[in-house]
Amino acid sequence: MQIEILTIGTELLLGYTIDTNGAELGRALAAAGVRVTRRVSVEDRAEVIRDAVAEALRRTGAVITTGGLGPTSDDVTKRVIAEWFDMPLEFREEIWQTLVERFGRFGRVPAERNRRQAEVPRGATVLPNRWGTAPGLWLESDKGLAILLPGVPGEMRQLLHHEVLPRLAPRVTGGVIRARTLRTFGLPESSVADRLAGAEADVAPLSLAYLPGVYGVDLRLVAWGLPAEEADARLARGIERLRQGVGDHAYGEDDTDLAAVVLDRLRARKMKLAVAESCTGGGLGERLTAIAGSSEVFVGGVIAYDNALKVSALGVPEALLEQHGAVSEPVARAMAAGAARKFGVPVTLAVTGIAGPTGGTPDKPVGLVYLGGSLEGETWVTRSVFPGDRGEIRARAAQAALFGLWRRLG
Amino acid sequence: MQIEILTIGTELLLGYTIDTNGAELGRALAAAGVRVTRRVSVEDRAEVIRDAVAEALRRTGAVITTGGLGPTSDDVTKRVIAEWFDMPLEFREEIWQTLVERFGRFGRVPAERNRRQAEVPRGATVLPNRWGTAPGLWLESDKGLAILLPGVPGEMRQLLHHEVLPRLAPRVTGGVIRARTLRTFGLPESSVADRLAGAEADVAPLSLAYLPGVYGVDLRLVAWGLPAEEADARLARGIERLRQGVGDHAYGEDDTDLAAVVLDRLRARKMKLAVAESCTGGGLGERLTAIAGSSEVFVGGVIAYDNALKVSALGVPEALLEQHGAVSEPVARAMAAGAARKFGVPVTLAVTGIAGPTGGTPDKPVGLVYLGGSLEGETWVTRSVFPGDRGEIRARAAQAALFGLWRRLG
Repeated sequence: MQIEILTIGTELLLGYTIDTNGAELGRALAAAGVRVTRRVSVEDRAEVIRDAVAEALRRTGAVITTGGLGPTSDDVTKRVIAEWFDMPLEFREEIWQTLVERFGRFGRVPAERNRRQAEVPRGATVLPNRWGTAPGLWLESDKGLAILLPGVPGEMRQLLHHEVLPRLAPRVTGGVIRARTLRTFGLPESSVADRLAGAEADVAPLSLAYLPGVYGVDLRLVAWGLPAEEADARLARGIERLRQGVGDHAYGEDDTDLAAVVLDRLRARKMKLAVAESCTGGGLGERLTAIAGSSEVFVGGVIAYDNALKVSALGVPEALLEQHGAVSEPVARAMAAGAARKFGVPVTLAVTGIAGPTGGTPDKPVGLVYLGGSLEGETWVTRSVFPGDRGEIRARAAQAALFGLWRRLG
Repeated sequence: MQIEILTIGTELLLGYTIDTNGAELGRALAAAGVRVTRRVSVEDRAEVIRDAVAEALRRTGAVITTGGLGPTSDDVTKRVIAEWFDMPLEFREEIWQTLVERFGRFGRVPAERNRRQAEVPRGATVLPNRWGTAPGLWLESDKGLAILLPGVPGEMRQLLHHEVLPRLAPRVTGGVIRARTLRTFGLPESSVADRLAGAEADVAPLSLAYLPGVYGVDLRLVAWGLPAEEADARLARGIERLRQGVGDHAYGEDDTDLAAVVLDRLRARKMKLAVAESCTGGGLGERLTAIAGSSEVFVGGVIAYDNALKVSALGVPEALLEQHGAVSEPVARAMAAGAARKFGVPVTLAVTGIAGPTGGTPDKPVGLVYLGGSLEGETWVTRSVFPGDRGEIRARAAQAALFGLWRRLG
């Protein structure tokens, strides 16, 4: 089963909207065994849409479109494709009633122009949209298969998973393309590669990609064109093989957030956490509190951006600041210990560094960060020089602070 | 001048990479007066790339590609397009020397396979890449124009602005497509529309789009196909017209961050700011400290996630917490006043609310947030119920806190 993706909207071509629908469709279709052979974006213009649909059907026999199903005059997708399939539009009272009810739930009445959204090409299958106003459509004839989805990402996603993929599944004969990702932190890409010498051969025919970023090096395994069960089994074994190589640098899989993993370990030990942040300015607390339920573990802390707060709110001795400077090993340690004392918690994290772009010196360059911590009275400090711009340095610092704690709790 | 964009890479079709290059090219080309008529993504396969280039040149006469210029066997773009233009690849010693020097600066030696990156189609113009290893290429003959750029976003952007747009400029005869955005906060989309009744006619032929999001409603004006000078003049007048309508709900333009604007106003008044954050958990501090130079104004504050910290670190009376609950008007006020007292600053912001997804009650639903503040001894609290998920509620709360202060400093 092959298909092309056609995303429709002038905003896409002008770059005012980034085409996340195309990526999401690509991932989901490949994982279901449908091969996406091409992705095209065109303007909201009838003749251009018609040509693009005709080309896609000629090449591949199937196309899935997003966009252009709304009630305004820009929205021409349905009319153009219905014409191309020789399926005249018919008003469907039951779709209109669904729309009226939907608007009514929000205390509104649909406008006259919304009636267009209740028109359906004769012979097409309606894909009910419980998440918005424009239903999806499935047009199929000897000309090929065209699946029309709305452009709103949330609606597109729901219709794809609830209406489209189940209908495509019986046609899938070949294999699927599925991926799993192992997330690592604390090793540069070259060291990860050294530790995984031989792994590429071991995981074959899966492919292995190294994806370095501010949250560490992600390792993506992809199964290409295998039967679904075999793909899943090989991916599971492949992930185990990678875990053996990288050991306790692997903190999770796929979309796992290190902050959530840290909170889980602390929750299991019934321990509370506080933070003392200088250069991250609240970003570490933000990471932790982005996780629902973090209040069971995380009590809060101090954003000690100015040195006066390091003294007054954390009890860092002024002499330490004068002697070593705010970005120093002793100050990071004093911040971690001070937070434990002030907030009466057994676990703390402290961050002090130079995020740039200015403020660096030969001795203390931009990117220098001291990460402090304390765990039941024992304190530690590590020194790092992180690459990247201000935002990247701050993001890496918060991630490294979480990682240091996660390993000590392991 | 028309052109098509062809982004090349199997990862793009599988959705593992989001095609930001396509959007960036679209914006920059349109603003320079080059009309992008289609965007296509294909796999790293020679025959598919060749077909896509041939189709684009047949339709439009010009194509700009990204990706497939690297040193690995996946990278076939250059070879395929050179063949299609009948321009055989030639090794260029001077490009190789540049590569050797570039690797040398990082203490490395290029691999044998990197020699492919020094091969140039005979008759093509080399677009020097000072930001990476793969130069861009400009192939032109009676078959049309093909511009080949690397897929790494930073390199693509630099080559586009330094090498491609200047070379395209002389060919531009028609108008440009340019946009300006006015950023507003504090009014729902429908109220913005009410205030701007008549504005659409006033700004014509510019189009006006409403873009609601967690940071407010952005208003985008687009000039379509006008001469560059007229476009800029009309956009300037159009922005003024919108400013008249929305008044002091407009806090900036384009990518302006409200946190930066707040810091500027405080810096002009030589005032220091501290925060007291509960449900935002550090996110307000993170917003402020993301701005370089924020340390001149922002001293830090307390993440008072747990009630114990509201008492110990901010001096909120326990009786207030017991009587009204942590998410209440009196507690927000006490947090703001407490931060001013504890940190000795004239300006504070406080946030306490229910970010969800759990913890709501009929009286205090998810999304309820009290925003407190103080300015030279005067305190205020506003109550809001923000829509969205946990992340959106927190982002809206931080933005609303900044906006409330910005207006009071106006």
